[in-house]
Order: sequence, then C-alpha cells, then structure tokens
Amino acid sequence: MTTSFTKIGIIGKHTNPEVHSTIASLVSFLQAQGLEIIMEERCAQSMSNLFVKQATREALGALCDLIIVVGGDGSLLDAARAVVDNGVPVVGVNRGRRGFLTDISPQALTQSLEPLLAGKYQEEHRFLLEMELQRDNEVIAQSMALNDVVIYSGDIARMIEFEVIIDKLVVYRQRSDGLITSTPTGSTAYALSGGGPILHPTLNAIALVPMHPPMLTSRPIVVDSKSTIEIHIMPDNLLNPRLSCDGQVHFNALPNDRIIISRKAKELRLLHPTDYDYYHTLRTKLGWSA
Amino acid sequence: MTTSFTKIGIIGKHTNPEVHSTIASLVSFLQAQGLEIIMEERCAQSMSNLFVKQATREALGALCDLIIVVGGDGSLLDAARAVVDNGVPVVGVNRGRRGFLTDISPQALTQSLEPLLAGKYQEEHRFLLEMELQRDNEVIAQSMALNDVVIYSGDIARMIEFEVIIDKLVVYRQRSDGLITSTPTGSTAYALSGGGPILHPTLNAIALVPMHPPMLTSRPIVVDSKSTIEIHIMPDNLLNPRLSCDGQVHFNALPNDRIIISRKAKELRLLHPTDYDYYHTLRTKLGWSA
Amino acid sequence: MTTSFTKIGIIGKHTNPEVHSTIASLVSFLQAQGLEIIMEERCAQSMSNLFVKQATREALGALCDLIIVVGGDGSLLDAARAVVDNGVPVVGVNRGRRGFLTDISPQALTQSLEPLLAGKYQEEHRFLLEMELQRDNEVIAQSMALNDVVIYSGDIARMIEFEVIIDKLVVYRQRSDGLITSTPTGSTAYALSGGGPILHPTLNAIALVPMHPPMLTSRPIVVDSKSTIEIHIMPDNLLNPRLSCDGQVHFNALPNDRIIISRKAKELRLLHPTDYDYYHTLRTKLGWSA
Amino acid sequence: MTTSFTKIGIIGKHTNPEVHSTIASLVSFLQAQGLEIIMEERCAQSMSNLFVKQATREALGALCDLIIVVGGDGSLLDAARAVVDNGVPVVGVNRGRRGFLTDISPQALTQSLEPLLAGKYQEEHRFLLEMELQRDNEVIAQSMALNDVVIYSGDIARMIEFEVIIDKLVVYRQRSDGLITSTPTGSTAYALSGGGPILHPTLNAIALVPMHPPMLTSRPIVVDSKSTIEIHIMPDNLLNPRLSCDGQVHFNALPNDRIIISRKAKELRLLHPTDYDYYHTLRTKLGWSA
Repeated sequence: MTTSFTKIGIIGKHTNPEVHSTIASLVSFLQAQGLEIIMEERCAQSMSNLFVKQATREALGALCDLIIVVGGDGSLLDAARAVVDNGVPVVGVNRGRRGFLTDISPQALTQSLEPLLAGKYQEEHRFLLEMELQRDNEVIAQSMALNDVVIYSGDIARMIEFEVIIDKLVVYRQRSDGLITSTPTGSTAYALSGGGPILHPTLNAIALVPMHPPMLTSRPIVVDSKSTIEIHIMPDNLLNPRLSCDGQVHFNALPNDRIIISRKAKELRLLHPTDYDYYHTLRTKLGWSA
Repeated sequence: MTTSFTKIGIIGKHTNPEVHSTIASLVSFLQAQGLEIIMEERCAQSMSNLFVKQATREALGALCDLIIVVGGDGSLLDAARAVVDNGVPVVGVNRGRRGFLTDISPQALTQSLEPLLAGKYQEEHRFLLEMELQRDNEVIAQSMALNDVVIYSGDIARMIEFEVIIDKLVVYRQRSDGLITSTPTGSTAYALSGGGPILHPTLNAIALVPMHPPMLTSRPIVVDSKSTIEIHIMPDNLLNPRLSCDGQVHFNALPNDRIIISRKAKELRLLHPTDYDYYHTLRTKLGWSA
Repeated sequence: MTTSFTKIGIIGKHTNPEVHSTIASLVSFLQAQGLEIIMEERCAQSMSNLFVKQATREALGALCDLIIVVGGDGSLLDAARAVVDNGVPVVGVNRGRRGFLTDISPQALTQSLEPLLAGKYQEEHRFLLEMELQRDNEVIAQSMALNDVVIYSGDIARMIEFEVIIDKLVVYRQRSDGLITSTPTGSTAYALSGGGPILHPTLNAIALVPMHPPMLTSRPIVVDSKSTIEIHIMPDNLLNPRLSCDGQVHFNALPNDRIIISRKAKELRLLHPTDYDYYHTLRTKLGWSA
Repeated sequence: MTTSFTKIGIIGKHTNPEVHSTIASLVSFLQAQGLEIIMEERCAQSMSNLFVKQATREALGALCDLIIVVGGDGSLLDAARAVVDNGVPVVGVNRGRRGFLTDISPQALTQSLEPLLAGKYQEEHRFLLEMELQRDNEVIAQSMALNDVVIYSGDIARMIEFEVIIDKLVVYRQRSDGLITSTPTGSTAYALSGGGPILHPTLNAIALVPMHPPMLTSRPIVVDSKSTIEIHIMPDNLLNPRLSCDGQVHFNALPNDRIIISRKAKELRLLHPTDYDYYHTLRTKLGWSA
C-alpha cells in the first residue's frame, strides 16, 4: 500500500473509554500499515500500554502530516485550533453525539481510513474566526474559533447591552442575553439553536445570531466573511460579560471592551471519505427524512 | 372626595432620580387628599426630606389598603411578591422601559389616580407561580414568581440536561441552555424573547419555553395552570444549574435536584385605570401599528 | 364478553387499499363479537363484498353508539364534524401519516379494541370551533372545525389585510398571508408549522397564529376558549380571501366580510386505550428522543 | 451643472395619485436641468398633461442612461427586471410602504437627485435569479427575479411535495406550503416573514426558506450564489403548484415539473445617494431603535 501520509498524529478525548478502545484499534491498524504514530500527550499517558511517541497538541501540527481526531465535534474543534497554523489536514472519527465534523464511523474505521491514507479523500477547507479582546486600545486576549465566538451575560437573568459595528458601520445596539458570531461550520451548532440559518460550509459568510433579544424585530444577519465585526460592550453594563471561542476557550470582558472578529487567513484542511456528502450529513444529523 | 383607599403604601426604585421626582409629586398629591402614606423603608431613607411613615416592603402589605409602585415592571414584580399574601391591591406608575404592568404614566399621575382612589378602576387578578427546590426529598428553598421561573446553565457555553414532568407524566428530557416556566403575565417578558406565545392575562395557563434547544423539534408547550410542573436536573450534569424567580431571586441547584412549580392560590390584585385595554398595551409596547 | 357498545359505525378513507384491508379485519372482528355494524355509505360501496348495513356519514351519529374511524387525522377530523352533535364517542385506527388523533395501531387492532369495547378506555373531550361567515350583517355560511379555521389570501404572492377583534376589543390589524385560529387539538397540526405553541388538549384556549406576517413583532396569541373572535376582512383588499375549516371545508370570502369564531358547546368524545399518554404521542410524533 | 446622465427614463405606479404628484415635480425638475425625459408609456398616458416622450418599459432600458422609479419596492422590482439586461442604472423614489430599495424621499427629491445626476452617488450591484420551468425536459417558461422565486401550493390548505437538489446533490424532500428562494435583496422581503435570515446585499448567497413546513427540523439554508438550484415537483402531487417571480410574474406548474434557479450574469446597477447606509435603512425599516 502506498500512502500520502507517513506521520500520523492521534488526538482523543482521554477520559472516554469508548474513545480508548477506538484509539487502540486505530493504533494497531496504523502500525500494521508501517506508519509512524505520534499521540497527543495526555491521551498517550492515559493509554500507557500503547508504545507510541507522544507530543503536545500544539507540537503535533508540526510533526505530523495527518491528524486523526477520535471523539465528538468538540474534540475536533479543540484539535483544529491547535494545528490549523501548521496546515496539516485533519480527519475525525466520531465518538460523540452529533458528529457533523467527525464523519468516520468507528465501526467502519479500516474501510474508511485505508483509501484515505492512500490519498483518496475529499479535502474541504473550513475557515476559522480570529478574535481579539481590546481594552483601552490594547489587545488583552486573542483566540480563534472554528464554530463560533459567543459574547454573553454571565447571568441569564440580566441582559448585556452592546453595539455591533461591521466594517466601521454601526449595525445595531442591542440588549439581550448575548450574541453568537458563527462560521458556516458553526451554523449547525449553537447558532442553529438560536434561530440562525444553516450556511453551506463553502459559503464565505459569517452569521450574527442574537440570543433571546427582547426586541422582536432582531433577526440573524449574514455578512461576507471578509467583514470585520466589532462588538462594543456598552460602558454602563452592570455586569461583566463573558466571551467564549467554540464554547471551549473563555475570557471575561468588562464594560467598554471591544471584541474584534475577523476571518483567519489560514484555513482548516478537513478530510472526508470520497463518498462524503454534506447534505446527507445534514439530513441524518437533523433528522430529515430522505 | 370620597375614596375607597385610606392607607397608601409607596414603593419605588430608590436609586433612580426620575422615580424620586415622581414619588415627590405623588406624596404631595396624596397628602392633599388627606390620605395616610407609608413608604417602603429604603425608598423613604433615600428621600428623607419627605416626612412620611416608613415600613419594610413585607410589612406594607399588612398596613396598607393600596400599594402604588413607581418604577418599571421589575419594581412591580418585586413588590407583588412581597405583598400578594396580604391581598392588598397594587397599581404601577411607569418609570421603566417597557411597562406592561405599570400602566399609569407619570405625566398623567393626578388624572389617573384621582378616579382610581375614588374607586373607579379595573381590577385584574394575575396569578403567580410557587417554586420549591427539593434536594434528597427535602425542600431546601422556596419562592414565588409573577413572571417566570427560569432554570439555566450557569455557563451558556455548556448545556444542562433536565427532565420535565407534568402531573406525574414525563413530557421530555432535554439538553439546552435551560427552561422558562412562565405565567400569562410573564409571557410578554423573557419567555417572549425565547419564542414563547403571548398568553392573555386572564388565561389559566402556564407556558414552558425551552432556551436554545439543540433539538429543533423542541417547542413551547402551554398547559393548564392547575398543573404541577416538576423539573428534574439529571444526575450526571457536570455543572450546577441556577434558578431564578422573576430574574430577581436566585438559587443554586445541584444535579439530581427537583424543582416543583405550581400555581399559587393567592393572586395579585392589579388595578388599572378604567380605560385600560390590554390589547392597546400590547400594540403599543410591541410596536404594532394600529 | 359484555360490552358497553352494541352498534358500531365504521368510517374509512374509501380510496386507500390499506384502509380497506384494515376495515375487513375490523368487520370480521366485530362480527365475531356479535356486534351490529353500520358502515359509512361510500366506504361500504367500495367494499361491496362485506355484507353490512350502510348509512350516510351524518346519519351514523344517530344510529351508532361508537364510531370507529380508519385512516389518518384528516379522516377523523371529517368524521368528528359529522357526528359531534350526536354525542357519540369516536376512536381512530391510524392509517395515515402522523396520527395524533388516531392512536390505535392496525397491527394491534384486536388487543386495543377488545378492552375498549368492554368499556375500558380513556375518554377525552376535545372542543371544536364554530365558524360563521357574515356578509352585510347576514350569516351566509357556517361550519365547524376540530383543528383550525384558516383565513388566507387565495394567492400567496399577495397579502390580505384583516383586523382581529376579540370580545369586542381590537387586537390588531395585519397584512399577511392569513391567520390560523386553532384549538388545542389543532395546535400540533398546521398552527405548529406557523410557529404556534403546543396547547395541551385539555386546555381551554384558542391560539391565533399569523401566517408569514411581514411585521416581525407579530406573534402567536393564546386566549381563553370562551372568547369570541372576529376577523374583519378590510374593505380595500384587492383579492378575495379564502376560508377553510380543518383544511377540508372551503368558502370564499369578500372584502368587508366578517368571520366569527367561537367555541362550540358540544364537544367531541374521543376514546383512547387505557394506556394512552398524550406526552408519549407528542414525543413519538414530533421525534423527541426519550 | 455638468451631469453624467442625459437621458432619464421615468417609471411610476400610474394608478397612485401621490406618485403622480411626485412625478410631476420630478419632470419639472429634470426639465429645468435641460435633461431629456422618456416616460414609461402607461405612466405617460395617465399623465397626459406632461409633454414628454414615451416608450415601453422594455424599450426604456436601451434609450436611457438612468432610470428613475417612483413608487414602492414593488415598482422597482418590476422596473429592474425590465431594464437589467441593458445595464442602465436605476434609482428609486419612495412612494410605497417599506422602501428598502427606493431610498430617495419625495420630500428631499431635489436635494437628493441633484448630486446624483452630477455623478455623486453610491453604485451597488444587486444580483438577480434566473428561473426556468422545465416540463418533459423542455423549457416551457423563463423569467427572472430580483427578490425571490416562490413555489407554492395554489391552495394553502393542502401542501405540495417537492425535492430540492443543489449542484446535483439532493438536499431534502419536503411537504409544505412551498419554498422561497431568495436573493440578498429579497432577504428583507417575503423570505424574512418566513423566518429567513437577513443577507447583506453584497453577499454572494442565496437563501432557501421553507414555507410552513410541518417537519419542525426544516430550516432556512444559505448557499453560494454560484449554485444551481433545482426544485422537482413530486409526480404524485394532487394539485398544481404555482410559481412566482418577485410576486409579480406567475406561472402554473404541474406534477413532475422541474424549476431551475441560478444567478443571472447581468446585475442590477442600483444607485443611492452618497450618504446611503444599508444598516441605517435596516434599522429604520425594521424598527430597530438606534
């Protein structure tokens, strides 16, 4: 078997026993192919019976030419942010709930991975958002998101007030529970439960979805992904809003802070089996009958 | 002028200067009518130039035969819970944002109150919800709500899982940001921003409105107000949900807690001017053109 | 076997072969019990090999002490309007798509019907709406609905303008595709697809659900079922709206017509097996996971 | 005054007296500037006191270098489809209800048009949709739309069943009242009342918004405007669906027909005053407070 990939990184949710068993199968399959394996260190430590190299999540991106993530969409989001800057492709094995991103089934692990390792796959580019938290004109925190940047009141019972500015133009000022700024990838996640539209993964667009806005005319807005989105926390907020990237990286904001969101230049290389069909995934995951 | 009311309680949001000025006018108007005035103590202390009796919010209900609330709907909610058990009627003077409940305008204070004090008014009964938080079969907290009881994840980025049981029947199990259980009075407040229906104030019904449910078939359900609603926090939640009554009284819940919600026997007596028209209020507050 | 019912009416969708086969089983089962069978005439004519008495749909109500409907919810709606005035109970065998109302499965026909015929069942009362179409102060058409009365533009591309008046009070004037006025029974049908809430079947309430209202603050309103609802077609409409009861009985309206909707005094007696659970039906039909 | 435009076409809703009076002012203003005026013929005939040249709506595009539309968004949609192929720019004077497209106020006619005629304006390109109705593999009708192509049951009480295919991939099969396929321009029109998102006018995207889908997981989908959208009317529909472009051009479809929708190559050149701000228009038209 000839293969395009020789150094395979493995990232898995180390606390989940089903993930462990899938990783064990995966390792033995890859070793049988004579491939080099480097495992994310926490995952490796929890599976000390497997004699494989290990590295930090961040180092994996530089060391490998393919990253296999075993887990749910959450695991893939986490891995994606860690390796995206190295341009290494990522593929997901689904051990989670929904699995919009992790489309290889553990039951079909070998059948799905063999052609993929041999260079037969669909490659999709998914863009991420860059987020900067600015205070007094200084950047005090930075992160990125494959799904969404969410700004929200730490306390649902009280709303926050903020202003949305796109490409220097004021869009609206709003009091609500918060705002979801979502990529197409995130449009089937939290944004969808807030009433946002489904954006096709290849669409160059960003959706802004208000959370429980009392003003009933507030509606999701979709803008070009080249836009720079600025969210200004109004100075007279009585509480300190929170900020999250992919629901995984958290920051505390203060009144008068500004959050700047824009499309990241580097994109995630997401691999799928050759028979991958986005609409089929949609129908299955959202329970649409054929 | 003959009047049905002789002892008037006044409650106002003591931190708001506009409320102060309206209360000053109100006191001088009531004094000119020869009426006895008792002011809520914190409000009285912040207006020490007015020489009126004072009492705690809770004592006012027993001492007065009418309570006038100056502020927004929030102030009226707060007052309603304090005095409802005494059966004393309440009327609101609007110094807030929306004012669904406080329908007397400060500009028309005298014209509106004079007939009302003379016994010319519409009396409306608004029911409240009783809430019990149960842990290990013991009631560890109790409160009530005129608008809504909200159970929610303390952290929006992570969902809580709970089961809703109505009159001993399981309705659904759900993972979401939380659940709004709303009276008709609360149906134009937070529940509305969550996609709930408007319930006419006299309807004997309770609405259950899920918050950002990822399961897209989740929808608001309206049940008879005689129903007993039980929300069971699933034992394997990783975080501790929060609980609020009217967004004003807060509790921390734990996995496996049960929240029991039912209609309170005592109802709020809410007074309106004789020309009050609920639908007119709806049209105005929600921005419906005539 | 003793039974509470001796004369059984059968109504079925005569064009559907699956319905035919279920009716054949049903007839043979009922004959074996020694029960008298009267079949709706069109149905009987299409099944001439069965030697049973026949009667019109309308006559069945007076002749029978139980009506069994074989088909979907549509068949039951149709039957319900025909027999409700006679107070005869109705039970449905599901041969349709959703089956909120027809909860006996054809596969379990005998097991479900035997106890029911023996008097073991849950009886539920479902209220209907009465609809009057008034022109120049005269009633020109009347009908009733178990699910909903829908007023709509004959042509979706153009909106109609109408005013909603409840108990003599103007609620709103609206331009839209139309208005769904729904019972609790209808709340899981067309009204649900228009964003209406689910109303528990025992709730004494009527929901008004606007259809594609361009005014984004328009929202479903739920009022007491004792209310009289009047819909006034504005005189300057350029097209003639249509009117339907349960999507089955149709009328043409004219500008300036008034449609009066109120709760019908006689209620449908709907029988269910003893293990019937409304919430279980909801979960199954709406695809809620346990 | 130097001007970029010398031959001005005027199109107005000839039945509306307010439009007449605005056109009269407009004509006298343009004549005073020494500009050549050609008026759409039906409009001209209803204003025979104005001695101006006339031409058909379709001819205007070839004869003029600017088209001024006086009326509502409907008038501009109509004019846009007539002149888009000639590449002539269009500007709208608002005499209608909403006026998302016609942003010059009749009150500020002169102040707004003077700089515009002098070449000071913002030019925006709005794309249109091309629609083909295919029967038995032949194109039997063609049209275009600036707002939306709507396929709908001729009778709201009964649903149609259709399949949506994008770029040869099946997206879903659905039973509902119909489907709105909308441009960004149309996203604030009918699609918005169906729960669709607001798409920024410059976004290269098309929104598919289902109408009253009984399947509650159906949601608006936004795809790249390069996509080819095919809607296949299922063969077993009992009624004949209708088809409309911008709610103005109508066609009857049959079961088994296919509707092909794609982005038109030629775009509408829409002119705005230099101070035009899309978000300001949104805030004003949708009633968002600043």
